[in-house]
Amino acid sequence: MRISELAEATGTSVTTLKFYLRRNLLSPGTSVNRTQSDYGPEHVERVALIRALTEVGGLDLAAVGRVLTVLDTRDPDRMSVLMTAQHALLGSDGAADRSLGPGRRGDDRTREWIRARGWTVDPDDPAIDRLAAAWRACDDSGVPLADERMSAYADATEQIARVDVESLPGEPTATARQVILGTVLVAPVLSALRFLAQQNESRSR
Amino acid sequence: MRISELAEATGTSVTTLKFYLRRNLLSPGTSVNRTQSDYGPEHVERVALIRALTEVGGLDLAAVGRVLTVLDTRDPDRMSVLMTAQHALLGSDGAADRSLGPGRRGDDRTREWIRARGWTVDPDDPAIDRLAAAWRACDDSGVPLADERMSAYADATEQIARVDVESLPGEPTATARQVILGTVLVAPVLSALRFLAQQNESRSR
Repeated sequence: MRISELAEATGTSVTTLKFYLRRNLLSPGTSVNRTQSDYGPEHVERVALIRALTEVGGLDLAAVGRVLTVLDTRDPDRMSVLMTAQHALLGSDGAADRSLGPGRRGDDRTREWIRARGWTVDPDDPAIDRLAAAWRACDDSGVPLADERMSAYADATEQIARVDVESLPGEPTATARQVILGTVLVAPVLSALRFLAQQNESRSR
Repeated sequence: MRISELAEATGTSVTTLKFYLRRNLLSPGTSVNRTQSDYGPEHVERVALIRALTEVGGLDLAAVGRVLTVLDTRDPDRMSVLMTAQHALLGSDGAADRSLGPGRRGDDRTREWIRARGWTVDPDDPAIDRLAAAWRACDDSGVPLADERMSAYADATEQIARVDVESLPGEPTATARQVILGTVLVAPVLSALRFLAQQNESRSR
């Protein structure tokens, strides 16, 4: 199909599609002549994916690029896919990491908390810094997260993670896509559920 | 203190502080003379709050403005504060809402699911649309969320919401701040916990 047909099929403007092409988020179509290219169903699928990642997942285009790079790499190692997906996602907003001063990477309290929790994680995982920064910001803003509250949140997120991991299909090639999309696209589902559950809980009191 | 001292006390540049002042995120200091103003501890606290909301909470400045407006309004009604906070947060990224076509506000499946779950929520709550859009995006991207998976996520988010609501202090004036900050700043804590728990769960299999 022509680019105008791809635009129609995906509900996306030609201008936006050309922007995706320039950013290498979308692979070029097959050249038909000097000014026209032919696009296929794989382009339709890719455009839908880019829009889901940006509009629902809230990723910026740099993060979308990182995610697509992981998706386009065949990698049978589920753990490295998971880590790469998390890095891509955390890298989509480096602000919290930049706000950490030197030597504050994953502060002692956070590392000790993870150890006490019994979680086995990569000591260089950027999520440790993110947790440390977010926890500190809560304290600094007068919303201290006491141990009991952190434990309750950890219990709940363990349940979520168990469902996340159980939902992964067995085939390695499908896994990268599932891990990344499950992480990116399920996040707004969880956040909306939290809002609705908060409201229900408030009303029931 | 002078603006240069406020900059030093908060680790924020004078340029950024002047930008906050222009955006009315920060109230003007007391005029000392034609070119100087005096700032107090309430300005230090406000700047810390703005930075927490942007750097940790990931809000854009328009959303920060909405959140601060709620915080600056004395409102003893916890439910309306909760709703206003959620609206401010959901409004920070209207992309998912804009991507919904007309007549697709909170689709039937989502409303039926909420009803079956037994949650009492405002039928116009924007989180319903957000949930519908995110759920549909998962389906469209090949990560279908079957009933069993949605129920497991809902069980976990109910636990989180219970802790959220239990953690609110009794005094109405403190509540608005706690509700908003608890919602905005705890979200990145939960997201980091989910990543770490995913990793731990993957490793333990």
